[in-house]
Amino acid sequence: MENHHTYIKRALELARSGMESGDGGPFGVVIVKGDEVIAEGHNCVLSSNDPTAHAEVVAIRKACDFLGTYQLDGCVIYSSCEPCPMCLGAIYWARPKAVYYVCTREDAARGEFDDEFIYNEINMSIEDRSIPFIHISIEKADELFLRWLKKSDRKSY
Amino acid sequence: MENHHTYIKRALELARSGMESGDGGPFGVVIVKGDEVIAEGHNCVLSSNDPTAHAEVVAIRKACDFLGTYQLDGCVIYSSCEPCPMCLGAIYWARPKAVYYVCTREDAARGEFDDEFIYNEINMSIEDRSIPFIHISIEKADELFLRWLKKSDRKSY
Repeated sequence: MENHHTYIKRALELARSGMESGDGGPFGVVIVKGDEVIAEGHNCVLSSNDPTAHAEVVAIRKACDFLGTYQLDGCVIYSSCEPCPMCLGAIYWARPKAVYYVCTREDAARGEFDDEFIYNEINMSIEDRSIPFIHISIEKADELFLRWLKKSDRKSY
Repeated sequence: MENHHTYIKRALELARSGMESGDGGPFGVVIVKGDEVIAEGHNCVLSSNDPTAHAEVVAIRKACDFLGTYQLDGCVIYSSCEPCPMCLGAIYWARPKAVYYVCTREDAARGEFDDEFIYNEINMSIEDRSIPFIHISIEKADELFLRWLKKSDRKSY
């Protein structure tokens, strides 16, 4: 566990320093491939006016840029906190081999972050959600996906 | 519904053109405030090597950049497809007033996209997930959130 602890402590340090510099909430991430740290990130929602600039998203984007691919094959993500649903989704799309985390969604809720609230909203039926999601039916719109499947140069992601 | 249909058709058009130009899957988004389109986006996962560059994330980032804030107060999001969990989370963090969508997560699954798979993974206990999530206990790590709450210049997001 020695290396894991080194990386996770760095993630916690990034969380602390990012918060103190006013970039955003106390969240930090380190992404490792083999023995190499390929990306670090901290929450930059406030400094970048970007609600998607969570530590995980920031670090995943940097790691993919570094590797020149949209997949984190063989990579390990170390996060100061259990990912929110947005970041969990980002992790699934990036497909690393494992995620280590320290604080939990309940800890984040005690810091007045919406992680747990959003996890609860996901499981509500659409009509009960706090943001209205309204379905519009348009005939044959789903043919987009048939066209996608038939695309001769299609690259899956 | 007239304006809704104009915007949602534009989102479908962005989905189609983005796919045809090879930028990514068939997904498009328009964000409107009042009567103004403030951002458009389409999936750019392939063209930008960024697994987070889904249409919703791309458009939310542009809209926030345009407005100079990390919140989409009073905005409406029009999406060619029901958002994946990552984009759903991004929407909750951005807090628009409503979301209109056409295709569903089941349509996306028929296009071999993981949206529905990821929705299912979220509700699994952590030990059953296809990506291992491993908790590391570090004493007093959650004090980060106490420090955050006590921060004198704290700005909630």
